[in-house]
Amino acid sequence: MEFTAQQIAMFLRGEVIGDPNVKVSDLAKIEEGQKGRLSFLSNPKYTDYLYTTESSVVLIDQSIELDPERSYTATLVKVADARAAMGMLLNMVQDALNPRKKGIEQPSFIAEGVQVPADAYVGAFAYIAKGVEIGEGTQIYPQVYLGDNVKVGKNCLIYAGVKIYHDCVIGDNCILHAGCVIGADGFGFAPVDGKLQKISQIGNVVLEGDNEIGANTTIDRATMGHTVIGRGTKMDNMVQIGHNVVTGQNNIFCAQVGVAGTTKIGDWNIFAGQVGVAGQLSIGSQNTFGAQSGIPGNIKDGQILMGTPVIPAKDWARQAVYLKRLPDMQNDIKELKKSINK
Amino acid sequence: MEFTAQQIAMFLRGEVIGDPNVKVSDLAKIEEGQKGRLSFLSNPKYTDYLYTTESSVVLIDQSIELDPERSYTATLVKVADARAAMGMLLNMVQDALNPRKKGIEQPSFIAEGVQVPADAYVGAFAYIAKGVEIGEGTQIYPQVYLGDNVKVGKNCLIYAGVKIYHDCVIGDNCILHAGCVIGADGFGFAPVDGKLQKISQIGNVVLEGDNEIGANTTIDRATMGHTVIGRGTKMDNMVQIGHNVVTGQNNIFCAQVGVAGTTKIGDWNIFAGQVGVAGQLSIGSQNTFGAQSGIPGNIKDGQILMGTPVIPAKDWARQAVYLKRLPDMQNDIKELKKSINK
Amino acid sequence: MEFTAQQIAMFLRGEVIGDPNVKVSDLAKIEEGQKGRLSFLSNPKYTDYLYTTESSVVLIDQSIELDPERSYTATLVKVADARAAMGMLLNMVQDALNPRKKGIEQPSFIAEGVQVPADAYVGAFAYIAKGVEIGEGTQIYPQVYLGDNVKVGKNCLIYAGVKIYHDCVIGDNCILHAGCVIGADGFGFAPVDGKLQKISQIGNVVLEGDNEIGANTTIDRATMGHTVIGRGTKMDNMVQIGHNVVTGQNNIFCAQVGVAGTTKIGDWNIFAGQVGVAGQLSIGSQNTFGAQSGIPGNIKDGQILMGTPVIPAKDWARQAVYLKRLPDMQNDIKELKKSINK
Repeated sequence: MEFTAQQIAMFLRGEVIGDPNVKVSDLAKIEEGQKGRLSFLSNPKYTDYLYTTESSVVLIDQSIELDPERSYTATLVKVADARAAMGMLLNMVQDALNPRKKGIEQPSFIAEGVQVPADAYVGAFAYIAKGVEIGEGTQIYPQVYLGDNVKVGKNCLIYAGVKIYHDCVIGDNCILHAGCVIGADGFGFAPVDGKLQKISQIGNVVLEGDNEIGANTTIDRATMGHTVIGRGTKMDNMVQIGHNVVTGQNNIFCAQVGVAGTTKIGDWNIFAGQVGVAGQLSIGSQNTFGAQSGIPGNIKDGQILMGTPVIPAKDWARQAVYLKRLPDMQNDIKELKKSINK
Repeated sequence: MEFTAQQIAMFLRGEVIGDPNVKVSDLAKIEEGQKGRLSFLSNPKYTDYLYTTESSVVLIDQSIELDPERSYTATLVKVADARAAMGMLLNMVQDALNPRKKGIEQPSFIAEGVQVPADAYVGAFAYIAKGVEIGEGTQIYPQVYLGDNVKVGKNCLIYAGVKIYHDCVIGDNCILHAGCVIGADGFGFAPVDGKLQKISQIGNVVLEGDNEIGANTTIDRATMGHTVIGRGTKMDNMVQIGHNVVTGQNNIFCAQVGVAGTTKIGDWNIFAGQVGVAGQLSIGSQNTFGAQSGIPGNIKDGQILMGTPVIPAKDWARQAVYLKRLPDMQNDIKELKKSINK
Repeated sequence: MEFTAQQIAMFLRGEVIGDPNVKVSDLAKIEEGQKGRLSFLSNPKYTDYLYTTESSVVLIDQSIELDPERSYTATLVKVADARAAMGMLLNMVQDALNPRKKGIEQPSFIAEGVQVPADAYVGAFAYIAKGVEIGEGTQIYPQVYLGDNVKVGKNCLIYAGVKIYHDCVIGDNCILHAGCVIGADGFGFAPVDGKLQKISQIGNVVLEGDNEIGANTTIDRATMGHTVIGRGTKMDNMVQIGHNVVTGQNNIFCAQVGVAGTTKIGDWNIFAGQVGVAGQLSIGSQNTFGAQSGIPGNIKDGQILMGTPVIPAKDWARQAVYLKRLPDMQNDIKELKKSINK
């Protein structure tokens, strides 16, 4: 794999500044640049590296201002959004490095009557139960478990060891990372005669499509009805989604977030790492929840929140400052009391 | 599957109000009710839905008071505890939808000398090591790993991909969800000669019985002796239990709770989501620990606690209010100083 | 397996006090001691148990002072560090109980051209993709997945169901517990045309060696370059390490810790349970981070920190005390206002 700056610019619809014929065959971070490599510069904070990098080509955000006094050796490819452009390039490289797999490896277990499309892949030790449907172009890696009647859409990537319980539905273009568990029982018990009696969980999980689900993430099936992950919503590793949660589109759940049962979530929210959301809530859209925050009540739209319980992030930052002043405040009060009682 | 209101009432020992011959063939939440469906009403907060639901039968808690002025179309089945009754119905449906599996699928790996009872199930790609014992009626799903000498009791449900290390003991009637790991090494190291030397973990894990263990939950083996999960204790997904922890009966651990090594826990406690418990503690019985709380010391019985470190939940709620007043308090102090120094 | 006190003392270079010929064949905690068992006493807090234990031999730290007035029945083996000595004994027992496995079980999947050393082990249902390298003495348990070109060093222990994505590198003497996932995609998306476009992750993960990785822990591959876990660093269960994180040597990550992408970490830090570390930070060496703390910024060396955001642990403890006084402080302010406005 070797490309010229010119080829890359054409692919990304960018503008070449410098030698269009210089070639690159690998990628590197700009601060670790080497001859023959491609780097990118999207964050102005790192602009200094441009003048020292040894990378041959640098993909650069057109908004970045360069210092006309300083020189650099790389050929630049200017694009509107260098980060997104880099993503497209990475996708191209990824596809070249990991070509789509096809065919059925042995030994695998495919129940009678299940149709595997000709361009799909089923790895060794995968278990495909009765009634399962698999879409075109879908790749099912080794040691995956698809329970009875699971439906997997087109062009999905189900990595090694994913477990999907019976009756769950995975939409098109989903990526499920190793070890994630879709459709285990929701957590419901009722105390009866001095014991905790299990409440059976007869619903399912529906991923609407274009979802990425991180390694070892767990999404529980609904008690009745559906747990729904809206189209385009992405989850990092070890996220926990309780039974009957319904999310809208394009939410981002960072690692180790937990959402308790029956909570409804709008679109385009960002939940930073280790956030906890209580059950039976209604969360609006376009909110950002800071890392480790805890959400005990309903939330409207468009807020930046932080803390347990969450408050506006600005107030939370001020609180941290005031907390440090508490000893002084108490001292002041003591002094005031003294002056008055004199 | 179709039942009349009369049949359901007989099964649940309830009282029919309305047409006893109306039939239902599916379940629905009361707010999403449809003709031919059964719903339930246990929480008075949702009573309003009764007057608008289209469900044909509603299972209702006898404690719920109805408005004699308003009409509804459903046949009611009154029971002492609608939620528990619904649980029993769900169990019946669950059993009908997912009949118990039997027999041994191929290819599986069953070490020489291991007896699989005639009514048990061993799925394909399951690995049953030497010395393993499997109780009657137990179902071992595909891709499960049972290490040397593992004992699994009667009527257990071990879902796909569960891993149980050597010498661990699973009591009767346990449900282990996909991806949980029982008996991995406790986390113990001693700094020796500038390195962290591993302390071998030669104990095991014992689940006493009637336990449900969530997806991707991990319970570590004891350094020596036993990590014990008491009878009837239930764990949600991604709970972490350290080596040598001993819990009593009927505790509830919600998702993402972590308990560090050697802590002892009594009976009937509730640990809400993401709670952390330090090691070597003694926790009493019938406590409730609010979500995300952190427990650094011993706890007696019957408390409702919150925060890091935990304090009574009432005090914690007050603290949140006082925290908001800090800027005002500081202002007041400043003003007081001014008045006095005048 | 039966040893005399004398044999144990020789193995551990300790001093016998009492009958050197007394025999033990099992281990027990000192408070659960029985005849024929070996216990250890390292923490002075538990010294009282020595006078009541029925264990035949007690391994004892030479720093522990005994009460000359009280008697005990056990033979003592005095050593410099009883805990470390116990570790060495446990290792010996562990090796006796779980002898290293050898050979290739069937059915397993080993791609053409992969060499499995004669003293290595590959369990049934393990999947070894093309280009994989396996070091001498390495044990690969059942249902493990090694993607294309994965390199595993010598004397590694890869427990059941571990998943390692393509191109990752595991150094010598690593222990990976069941269900951990090495090399899943880092979590990176860019909003493009109203959608979240995936940024491909074409780097890998490198464990330098002597690492222990807990059950269900996840370590993401780098976007470009390497996610690196330094030599001797140990992780408990369900730790999350983001893409491009680089850690130094001998760090301890307790259970459920999360580290966001691109953060650099020095040596010999301890991260207690459920700690969260933000992305793109620089963390020094020899710090201790208390349980559940949250780290939003760079950290120098040698600190003991606590809270979200982290502050010195001493200050954090004081803050908890001051927080309890807030109602009194507000009262005082009210009273002061009254006195002044009189």
